[in-house]
Amino acid sequence: MREFRAKPVVEALTQEYKEQADKLKSRGVVPALAIVRVGKREDDLAYERGIIKRFESAGCEAKVHELPEDVTFETVRDLLIQLDKDEKVHGILMFRPLPKHLDEDALRNLVSAGKDADCMSDINAAHVFAQDGVGYPPCTPEAVIEMLRFYEVPLKGKRVTVVGRSMVVGKPLAMLLLKENATVTICHTRTVDLEAECQRADIICAAAGAPRMIGPDHVSEGQIIMDVGINMVDGKLCGDVDYDAVSPLVDAITPVPGGVGGVTTAMLLKHVIASAKGM
Amino acid sequence: MREFRAKPVVEALTQEYKEQADKLKSRGVVPALAIVRVGKREDDLAYERGIIKRFESAGCEAKVHELPEDVTFETVRDLLIQLDKDEKVHGILMFRPLPKHLDEDALRNLVSAGKDADCMSDINAAHVFAQDGVGYPPCTPEAVIEMLRFYEVPLKGKRVTVVGRSMVVGKPLAMLLLKENATVTICHTRTVDLEAECQRADIICAAAGAPRMIGPDHVSEGQIIMDVGINMVDGKLCGDVDYDAVSPLVDAITPVPGGVGGVTTAMLLKHVIASAKGM
Repeated sequence: MREFRAKPVVEALTQEYKEQADKLKSRGVVPALAIVRVGKREDDLAYERGIIKRFESAGCEAKVHELPEDVTFETVRDLLIQLDKDEKVHGILMFRPLPKHLDEDALRNLVSAGKDADCMSDINAAHVFAQDGVGYPPCTPEAVIEMLRFYEVPLKGKRVTVVGRSMVVGKPLAMLLLKENATVTICHTRTVDLEAECQRADIICAAAGAPRMIGPDHVSEGQIIMDVGINMVDGKLCGDVDYDAVSPLVDAITPVPGGVGGVTTAMLLKHVIASAKGM
Repeated sequence: MREFRAKPVVEALTQEYKEQADKLKSRGVVPALAIVRVGKREDDLAYERGIIKRFESAGCEAKVHELPEDVTFETVRDLLIQLDKDEKVHGILMFRPLPKHLDEDALRNLVSAGKDADCMSDINAAHVFAQDGVGYPPCTPEAVIEMLRFYEVPLKGKRVTVVGRSMVVGKPLAMLLLKENATVTICHTRTVDLEAECQRADIICAAAGAPRMIGPDHVSEGQIIMDVGINMVDGKLCGDVDYDAVSPLVDAITPVPGGVGGVTTAMLLKHVIASAKGM
């Protein structure tokens, strides 16, 4: 069994992105992400630290704009509009969900496609759906594709079963896999025989948000298992796959933590550098 | 073998929509579609006649705005903006592709989501992708869903294989099927064993645009076959399914012509009436 870990992927990608960032900096452009955070939610803060570290390692900027929990809609709106206009800002990430008093649908659509680094706007969702080469996909599903590419897993003509149909992972991931010419099956809570749909796949992408729901009965020999789940159970992180039971049975698997989730910040960096190149 | 024909579906829907339109008219609102046609392409004209007939049968308006083949971008743009603002217009349909000198991407996105009766804008594509209940899906994939509903074919938990991944049919159809809680497999030209992917389905939706590509080796007993293809071969219309060879083997099949294609104008009517109700 091979373990597909984030670390070598991130190291290789960071090296590549750092070289691109260095070229941009020699032209006076410092690739910069603006993070908009309302309040101090612990998971936002943890992700923020990961982003800042990743951007620093490639010599890029990630600047946090912290707003109080009771901030007004107008203040967030004006900040997003200002950041969207600012030529020194190449990408914008706003942590969500926002507090309930803020109109999230209105706010997330204020960022233009080229600066929407994690696909929060409807227009970028449309581009992911159409796969027309415009805008950026959400970082997590793209991390799955980048990991498969790094570990040299071909996708063309392969059967991929995606478990989960969220707009954050399942559906955009299905579109990215189609772009790579995989044959994609999308499963969910109403799928009748999930075991069969999983067993027949070459690759399983588990993105249901249900701790260890993919067990030994779902897998078969030679499979690649991409675990996108990040769940907290009894104070410990675990994925959507029962790692201990499944890993001895398959060809390759991503651990949680240390797998897909570890590659997402590199995707954010990729988008910000691409945006900086285009400006 | 049952034949799922458009006629009874359209008759039932038209009756329903006519009642809704009558209520609107009693309040002084005449549901109205604006058709924008550039040039005189024969297939546009044929579709236009079908639309006008369908709208007349429900007592609704379908007004054609014909523009010459060499019309300028500005003229089309101004017409679309004017129609979008016009309170007496509840839906807009622009025949595409447009002549090459016109920027189709810019023009198709000028229509607001609520008037975009056949999902030509990116924003409505995003709503179809998210299935968030806003905007209207493209008429052809929705016709598939309406036919299955009329013929009382349950979708929840069913395996559906969609052959084709276009933005006109395959991908939006996959999203509509997911909404109905089907387990959806999307196949395409790079799918390795299309026969197997089709045979294992409860329902096959053929939307590849390849004449009679689905043959007896693709089907199995008890299946429902929805043929979305409309191809011209030797001067005769045929679908993506080899009807003569496949129909004796399955539970139900849509003919071409007289099947899915016949229901699309009713979907257009549905959207225009829904839009008129909301205004």
